[in-house]
Amino acid sequence: MSEPTKPAPPAAEAPAAAAPAEGEAAAGPSKNELKKQAKAAEKAKKAAERAAREEEEKKKREAAAAVDNAAQNYGKLPLHQSQERPGREWLSFEKLTDADVGKEVVFRARLHNMRPQGAKIVFLQLRQQIETLQGVLVASSSENDPHQVSKQMLKYAQQIPAESIVVVEGVIKKAEVKSCTIQNYEVGIYKLHTLVEAEPLPFTIEDASRSEAEIEKGEKEGLQFSKVSLPTRLDNRVLDLRTPANQAIFRIQSGICQLFRDHLNNEGFIEIHSPKLQGAATESGASVFKVQYFKETAFLAQSPQLAKQMCIAADFGKVYEIGPVFRAENSNTYRHLTEFNGLDLELAITEHYHEVVDVLDNLLVSIFKGLEAKYEKEIEAVRKQFPCDKFTYLEKTLRLTHKEVVKMLQEAGAKDSEGNIIGDQEDLSTENERFLGKLIKEKYNTDYFIVDKFPLAIRPFYTMPDPNDPTVSNSYDFFMRGEEILSGAQRIHDPNFLVQRIKELGADPASLEDYVSAFRLGAPPHGGGGIG
Amino acid sequence: MSEPTKPAPPAAEAPAAAAPAEGEAAAGPSKNELKKQAKAAEKAKKAAERAAREEEEKKKREAAAAVDNAAQNYGKLPLHQSQERPGREWLSFEKLTDADVGKEVVFRARLHNMRPQGAKIVFLQLRQQIETLQGVLVASSSENDPHQVSKQMLKYAQQIPAESIVVVEGVIKKAEVKSCTIQNYEVGIYKLHTLVEAEPLPFTIEDASRSEAEIEKGEKEGLQFSKVSLPTRLDNRVLDLRTPANQAIFRIQSGICQLFRDHLNNEGFIEIHSPKLQGAATESGASVFKVQYFKETAFLAQSPQLAKQMCIAADFGKVYEIGPVFRAENSNTYRHLTEFNGLDLELAITEHYHEVVDVLDNLLVSIFKGLEAKYEKEIEAVRKQFPCDKFTYLEKTLRLTHKEVVKMLQEAGAKDSEGNIIGDQEDLSTENERFLGKLIKEKYNTDYFIVDKFPLAIRPFYTMPDPNDPTVSNSYDFFMRGEEILSGAQRIHDPNFLVQRIKELGADPASLEDYVSAFRLGAPPHGGGGIG
Repeated sequence: MSEPTKPAPPAAEAPAAAAPAEGEAAAGPSKNELKKQAKAAEKAKKAAERAAREEEEKKKREAAAAVDNAAQNYGKLPLHQSQERPGREWLSFEKLTDADVGKEVVFRARLHNMRPQGAKIVFLQLRQQIETLQGVLVASSSENDPHQVSKQMLKYAQQIPAESIVVVEGVIKKAEVKSCTIQNYEVGIYKLHTLVEAEPLPFTIEDASRSEAEIEKGEKEGLQFSKVSLPTRLDNRVLDLRTPANQAIFRIQSGICQLFRDHLNNEGFIEIHSPKLQGAATESGASVFKVQYFKETAFLAQSPQLAKQMCIAADFGKVYEIGPVFRAENSNTYRHLTEFNGLDLELAITEHYHEVVDVLDNLLVSIFKGLEAKYEKEIEAVRKQFPCDKFTYLEKTLRLTHKEVVKMLQEAGAKDSEGNIIGDQEDLSTENERFLGKLIKEKYNTDYFIVDKFPLAIRPFYTMPDPNDPTVSNSYDFFMRGEEILSGAQRIHDPNFLVQRIKELGADPASLEDYVSAFRLGAPPHGGGGIG
Repeated sequence: MSEPTKPAPPAAEAPAAAAPAEGEAAAGPSKNELKKQAKAAEKAKKAAERAAREEEEKKKREAAAAVDNAAQNYGKLPLHQSQERPGREWLSFEKLTDADVGKEVVFRARLHNMRPQGAKIVFLQLRQQIETLQGVLVASSSENDPHQVSKQMLKYAQQIPAESIVVVEGVIKKAEVKSCTIQNYEVGIYKLHTLVEAEPLPFTIEDASRSEAEIEKGEKEGLQFSKVSLPTRLDNRVLDLRTPANQAIFRIQSGICQLFRDHLNNEGFIEIHSPKLQGAATESGASVFKVQYFKETAFLAQSPQLAKQMCIAADFGKVYEIGPVFRAENSNTYRHLTEFNGLDLELAITEHYHEVVDVLDNLLVSIFKGLEAKYEKEIEAVRKQFPCDKFTYLEKTLRLTHKEVVKMLQEAGAKDSEGNIIGDQEDLSTENERFLGKLIKEKYNTDYFIVDKFPLAIRPFYTMPDPNDPTVSNSYDFFMRGEEILSGAQRIHDPNFLVQRIKELGADPASLEDYVSAFRLGAPPHGGGGIG
């Protein structure tokens, strides 16, 4: 119950503390004796004080222990400065299995939220990335239990700010928990320390994670869910990125890059990193950002087009790049940003540009399959907040010509911007792309298809014309869910023919000599494309 | 010898050509008959003309054939516009094996160089990336052989400009060839067409591929090798990139990126792509490029430091980025460029920042091993032009503290910029880094080692101090061949302590609030590093 009583300090330690005989004092001691006596008295006084202090401390300790035997089981930890490295095994929620039931574990997690139940139980939702696990604190009174949970500890748990990082020790138990992503286990907590305390939150992760549909449903049921606006999210990006959907989106993005590279590396591609600061604007037409480069002006690369083609002219054979692309277009359309990541590739072709179409098609299908195989949980997390239909694609990708899709659109009554049925040579507006996606989905049941052989007139000057029909080009677009996601073509590799095409289009070849000169020392026939 | 004589056109084809009986003519033919006769005469005349023309053409054909029966075996191909896709098997030099000997093959290659031998033989060096294969053209006179090589064909082969791309058909033969990378085979050529003709070259690949040592050796032997200057190389980048060393360097660069990612993906890292256009300069101190962003000013990211740390605060756990980094330092030192590719990583730590050191060390060793295993040929190609010693590293990486290496340097007499023995708290100059590399190599026989625990005073403000010695920090540098290649540390994750450190260093916390605020909503302890 309390600590065993300590014996009082032995009298021998302070012999002078024994009260001097009155007579002796009257006998008039020598100066030396007086000094000795004073010293002894001082010593005795200090010893008495010490004994009193110790007694008081002992009482305090006893009192404290009586009140909270679990004091060592909770509290704020000192600043983590890598004080020690004991090499403990730290639990990761996603690895929990039945084998862990009954085990004592230690882990770190965010305090997602907290709910007291009566005076003796507190439920915590503990989060690691997209997984949540229920933690339970039950106040107990078995005083000699090192795993005791005191009422003070319950109180402490309830005042930890949400999103703080806690270090938890406890026992894994079988359970049925509906409110967490981990639904068959919970942790019975006996130690709870705060490692990092979060400041007050502008919004909760729960509020930021709800879908529009959930909010609407809640409103109908009289629940007033807080809606988190986009500006608030962007002002608190670090917090918003903790929602399951955002966690999943970043994992999927990373996954797409790996699947993209793995596929192309296996095909013998080389990854390049082309310079983003350039001495001249690369593609005519597109707007370019200017950079103050010491005393001169540089430009931010609008695409790795020329760099990719130079690599082909330099015999790299097959190259790809994943990197930032900059476009000074203040358009505020939902498909253009001033900076985005482009996935670009280019390859020498031997017989036909359809070799490039095949590479791109196989690449995309391998990404679809890779995501299905490895990112099911993440895709689910995104769809929970942003519901959408399952993405469908065919075993053998549908390939149509521009002529064929224009005919489909014309027959379905697709209009141009002036309200007339669209013309044969027309580029597809965003609206008609969506309409085409709908028509194709109805007819072929696929969200993914390729359109080949675009009119020469609506493609860039460096696009190779069809060998038989001079109005058509060796170019293609790939579509997903009614949106063009990839555009590419066979490029003109002959410098003289390039100059001829530039002239035909009314431009000055001198202004494009930097581009043309890349092909003067011999470039193989080639083609490519860009996703972005 | 010549084509079989064709029979003359049958007389039946022109019955009216038979000379009419005079009497009949005198009998006075009717008008109708006259018309008929005129028509028949015309017909006969045409037939005769046709016969004569055909005879002449036949003679021409025979003459031509007598002169060059191999005319169809060489020449310039029309512009490659993807006219057909026959699906032939195109040979790749690096896949040549004994099984190919005696086979008829078709392939595409650069004409690397050409050497006639006497009047009847021409040797071609044909190049695919870093491999060269000898091609032999031997003039023959077996006129009915479809594989005949004529003297005209030999002449044609000798005037194809170097670096043109040719399509070759021939038979693979066993051979001993010293001048090519493929030394045990050659191709006996019977078809040679030019697909892409190169314009005159500013320099040859051979001249651009020689090492300094080879050039010096040549000079001693009285050979005047052309030296290709750096400006000439940069002005003709496409050509210079075709040298074996440059082909190899780009493959190795690509390989390092894959090895970096593969290792970290297996460790559970997420790849991020942080924005390069920023609203404010991130790190104080370093010079930043300004971008005209519509009517405002933006900045180019000097490092992904803040972005990486925000991802950790957002619970991504472990992140890395390979991307461009911009530094407006017009220093012209060989270690700084205004744009370079940085390899950065950051991770939450559980017990100790040495978890980060372990991750980085294992990462680098896995890259060394991966390069040895997969890029032996490329490393050899680089060392041929730029000779250097083999890179050595230990099975268990040498780790020393800053104190220990300073002591080594002091004992070896290393001086600071003022000529005094270097001080205890000093950062290492480039010179002293090299000196240290030499000392370590001598003592431990390794080109790779880690220095831990740098003085706090010489590291950035966000570096976590050591828990026991406030003059030391939880920071480290990695060294290769006497150069720092990676720098990193445990970062301060506590916003209040960050503000305190900023004040201690005499800076204004308000100017760094964008940075500090990333940690206000709770960031786990973390550390990282950057290679670049």
